[in-house]
Parts: sequence; structure tokens; C-alpha cells
Amino acid sequence: MRATLLTAVGDIALTEVADPAVHFPTDAVVKVTATCICGSDLHPYRGTAPTVFPKRAGHEFVGVVTDVGSAVSTLKVGDLVVAPFAISDGTCVRCRNGITTSCQQGSFWGAPDRRGVLADGAQAERVRVPLADGTLVRVDTPLDDALLADLLALSDVMGTGHHAAVSAGVTEGSSVVVVGDGAVGLCAVLAARRLGASRIIAMSRHSSRQALAREFGATDVVAERGADGAAAILELLGGEGVDCALECAGSQESFEQALAVLRPGGRMGCVGAPFFQVPVPKLFGANIGFRGGVAPVRAYLPELLQDVLTGAIHPGRVFDLTLPLAEVAEGYRAMDERRAIKVLLRP
Amino acid sequence: MRATLLTAVGDIALTEVADPAVHFPTDAVVKVTATCICGSDLHPYRGTAPTVFPKRAGHEFVGVVTDVGSAVSTLKVGDLVVAPFAISDGTCVRCRNGITTSCQQGSFWGAPDRRGVLADGAQAERVRVPLADGTLVRVDTPLDDALLADLLALSDVMGTGHHAAVSAGVTEGSSVVVVGDGAVGLCAVLAARRLGASRIIAMSRHSSRQALAREFGATDVVAERGADGAAAILELLGGEGVDCALECAGSQESFEQALAVLRPGGRMGCVGAPFFQVPVPKLFGANIGFRGGVAPVRAYLPELLQDVLTGAIHPGRVFDLTLPLAEVAEGYRAMDERRAIKVLLRP
Repeated sequence: MRATLLTAVGDIALTEVADPAVHFPTDAVVKVTATCICGSDLHPYRGTAPTVFPKRAGHEFVGVVTDVGSAVSTLKVGDLVVAPFAISDGTCVRCRNGITTSCQQGSFWGAPDRRGVLADGAQAERVRVPLADGTLVRVDTPLDDALLADLLALSDVMGTGHHAAVSAGVTEGSSVVVVGDGAVGLCAVLAARRLGASRIIAMSRHSSRQALAREFGATDVVAERGADGAAAILELLGGEGVDCALECAGSQESFEQALAVLRPGGRMGCVGAPFFQVPVPKLFGANIGFRGGVAPVRAYLPELLQDVLTGAIHPGRVFDLTLPLAEVAEGYRAMDERRAIKVLLRP
Repeated sequence: MRATLLTAVGDIALTEVADPAVHFPTDAVVKVTATCICGSDLHPYRGTAPTVFPKRAGHEFVGVVTDVGSAVSTLKVGDLVVAPFAISDGTCVRCRNGITTSCQQGSFWGAPDRRGVLADGAQAERVRVPLADGTLVRVDTPLDDALLADLLALSDVMGTGHHAAVSAGVTEGSSVVVVGDGAVGLCAVLAARRLGASRIIAMSRHSSRQALAREFGATDVVAERGADGAAAILELLGGEGVDCALECAGSQESFEQALAVLRPGGRMGCVGAPFFQVPVPKLFGANIGFRGGVAPVRAYLPELLQDVLTGAIHPGRVFDLTLPLAEVAEGYRAMDERRAIKVLLRP
């Protein structure tokens, strides 16, 4: 089959690899219906994160089960499934605590699983799924293209945006600022609205992203950044900061931006891969909370899937470019150059 | 009147100063019935925090109102009152949000108030109280010595321990580790029990403090520290960390200790003056939350006072040495040398 391979910084290609097969009784094999490119895929592509090349790429997919191991009990051939961006058994204490990304048997796509066998990358035609009962979520609804995009967004960005909102304690009536206008930031806007926030300020200077932020529920959009951005937000709010800041970018600049707009006692929900330091005395003095991390998307999937299936949310709107998998390299370029918010790939 | 004055590192004395008086219409004057020495008073005493000498000392007191300004509406001469360790108006948005230590008109004892007039230190015979309606809490119960100690603990340590527990999200059934066996750490044990924690592990190697921790509700005491301490705790818990770690010391060592015993998704409640750095990738990878800060004791006072008055809690048990105010220097020595957990002073 064909799979995406990062061979060096900036060098991505679709290459012929061995077909995946059930290796352990708890495995399934899934034929990929749609996959996509993540902002975090750009780190190895750009050389901004340590990476061992060659690397199989992709960690988001929707597909159809084509084979199951003898120990798989909840899935059968032909099932439509959504895969979260991390593999988890669903039964260990950490999964039961809702932190599926810390699963005691867990691993990540495109790298060896806990038993040393490669878990395929998702930007491919087929994927071996370890711990299939724990990892995959079955969808019992006929598929169409609109639903496909919404389901695919549940693999990562919608659950990650939701994790930012949950980590920051967003609840009915909260005032919220979202820092970062990538697909995760936009989904964080949608998540904040879904959780009942009454004021949602999106920070974005790109008109297409501003428009989607408003569609997702942003009550205000602030284009300025840094001190100007903070001043604009405080003016909107009558001088006092917000209850919750959703940090969806991960840079020192974005962290400081989030911190600058929080009221004393406010909370930050951080989901952007963290390339920042925390100024502890500043947080401590103002009782600012800090929470978040690698989003346990699997734990949120049933709840969010329900809202996708009823049409209450359409997180798939973040996909503004669809390409055949064969054009994956162009997809990376479009993401890298910010020509696309998020690229959907069809094998 | 006589008041405690820090004149240099290690040099504390009771000196004659001007009698306080109502200066602003929102002021009250309180005759101090009891005051005490805080772990944080040891920072200027030891020279471990930047301090401008001479400094009026003390920020915890219980007393009787002897004068009120014309704008004070909730207090009258003769009222028994508890003062929290920070001055706050009780009406601004930050007070209404429960973060009274960030009050827009707020200030701290022993330093100029927001209008530039000294707010007396509490280790004295009398104290001018700015923003008296917002700051002071009236107690409508006859006083005896046992109640006096419990009330005085509400000035700081009980509310601060409670803040650690609240910040860490302690709730019914939580498993909790308390790092720090000073008066705040011990009150954090009591607060965790009060909030329904089912497992409370106190870290202490001093037998008198261990005993009080058990009296306050600790289910286990671990004397080891560092990696040995973490290993002992994980063994007690069957291998997985706790839900909540209450960081009541503030050093890098105590912070790392708290981090080492938390499960993925666990939360840290920090109330020790923070002399530590936060290893962000470690917190992020395991979804460890970080919250806390300068405790808004005033906001918690009514609720905790209720439990003191019914006898449900006896936080005053942390006072294991009572001295006349004239012997304040000996009180500082006893705290500094850890001969006493907390010293109560009677003017």
C-alpha cells in the first residue's frame, strides 16, 4: 500500500510500504476513508522538533474495519470508525481517569507500539490499529461527505480544542479568549460555545479564520497582538480580564498573550505543544491556574460524536482544502504557508 | 503603643510607636486580643526575601473594635473580629470573584495602604484597619481561649491550607498528598479531610507534627523525602499517584516532590511562596494542573468560621507555643529553629 513518509526536513513523499495486517489478537486493520494533516505534523516537516527520519506520518483518520484480531470484541469487519490521535486500551486506571493519552499500554501512530511493532501512520491507505477495542470509536450512521469531515475533526482538533476549554474550566456564562487561530483554536471557540461561554473573543488576523471563528461562536474578534491585543481585549471587557484563556499555539508569545488577558483567579487551558516558560510569581500573585496537555481525545469522543451526529456542531468546517492522498506534499506546503487551515486527504 | 519592628535580618524588637487612629472614614481601630507569627515572617527575619527595614511585622490577628470611621456600616465598638492577612474592600469585581488578595483597593499589613497611610503590623497592641467593612469578619460568640486559637488560625493558615485543597480540586473521595508540615501544611490536611478526601498522606519527619497531622485527618504519614518519599507513597497507593498534591512549602524540592506523586491528570494546589521553576513539558505530557497563589482567605472566612463555631474543626491546634507579646523575639527564634509549629502572642 501507499503511505506518507517524511524522509528529511521539508521532504515528504507517498511511498510503497508493506500492507498492514493483524499482528496481535487485539489489533484491527482499517481502510482509511479520510485522513488529514495536523499543525503538529509541521514540526518535523519544518525541523522545529527533534525527529528520527524516515518517519511515517499522520495520526488522524476515519475508515472502515477490514480485519480484526481474535481478541477484538466490540468491532467487526465493515464497521465505520473514528481513530483518536493516540492509542489506548480503555481499561487501565489512567484511561478510567480519563487521561487516555497516558494509557499504561498506550502509544502513538507512526511509531512502534508498546510491544515494538510499528503502528502505521494515518496518512496512508490502511492502518494497523493496536488495542482496537480501546482505541477506535464505532459510528453507526451512514456516511456522507459533510459527516466525514466532521467525524475526521474528532480525531484530534475538536477534542483538543474541547480539552483546552475543559482545562480552563469554561462553563455556562464564562468569558473566554482563544489564542491561536489554527484548526485547534477555531475548534476551541466551538467548544467554548458548546460549553455555554457567554463571551468568546478569538484572536486572529486572517479574514477566513476570523469568519470561521464567528461562525463557530466567537462574539468578538481581535486582530491585534501583544500589548495592543491585550489592551483591545481589556477595553472590550470594560477593564477586567477574562475567566478563561485557551492557549492553542504553544509559543512564549502566545502564552504571554493568554496570561495578559486573564483576570485574577482566571484559568489557562493549554493545548499547544508547549515551547514556553511559566513565570511562576506572576501566576501565583494573581491566582492564575494552568492546566491542559496532550488532549485525551478518546475520552471525549463519545460525547462529541453525539453532537456531530445530531448536527449540533460542525467541526469539519476547519477543512478548507481537500486533496487526494497522492498530493500529500502539496497539502503540507499549503499548511506550511498558511494557505489552508487544515487539509483533508482522500486515499 | 508597642509594636513589633524588624530592624535588620535576625533583629526583631517590640518598640514604642504612635497609637493608631481612624484616618479615613472607612477605617476601624482594633485592640489586638491575640496575634501570631507566620512562616512567611521568617523570610525577612532570615534574609531570604527582599525586605525594606525597618518593617512593622505581623498580618494575623483577632481583636475587639475600639473605634470606627463614619463610613463603617457593619461594625461597632466592642465587636469581636477576625482579620484576614490581606486588606480588601469586598465590593470590587475581584473581591466578588473571590480573589480578595487581588482587591483593586487592597493592600497588606505592615505597609502603606492604597492611599499611602501605614496599615499597622498585627504583632502589636492595636491596629488601624483600612476598608474595615470589607476586611474584618465579626464573630458573634463569647470568647474563650480554645476558640481564640481557632479564630486566629482563620487569619491565615487555615484559609491558606483550604486554598491549597480547593486549588487542587480536592473533593469527596480524592486521594491527597500534603507536602510541607508547617502550620499551613497541617491545616491543608484538615481542609482536605473537611472536603471529603478519602486518602490523605502527610509528608513529615517531625513526630509532633506527624501526630497533629493524624489528629487533623491524615490517613498515612510518610517520613521519607525525595525519590524515597515518592516511592513510599506510590507503594501505599498501589503504584499510581494521587489525584491532588498540596504544595505548602514553596521550594523547588517540595514542588518536585508534589509533582512526583501525582497521577496523570492530577492537580497541584500551591500556596507556599513560590521559589521554584515549573518543568512545563513534564506537566503538559501528563496533564498535571497547577493552581493556587496568595490565598484569598477573606473569601473563605465565613464558611470556615461556621465550622470553627460549631466545633467541627480546631485549626487552632497548630499553636503549640503561647507567649506574651513582649517575648516576640523568642517567638521568632522558636519558629526559626522549628522548636514551635506556630507561636501565638498575647499583648
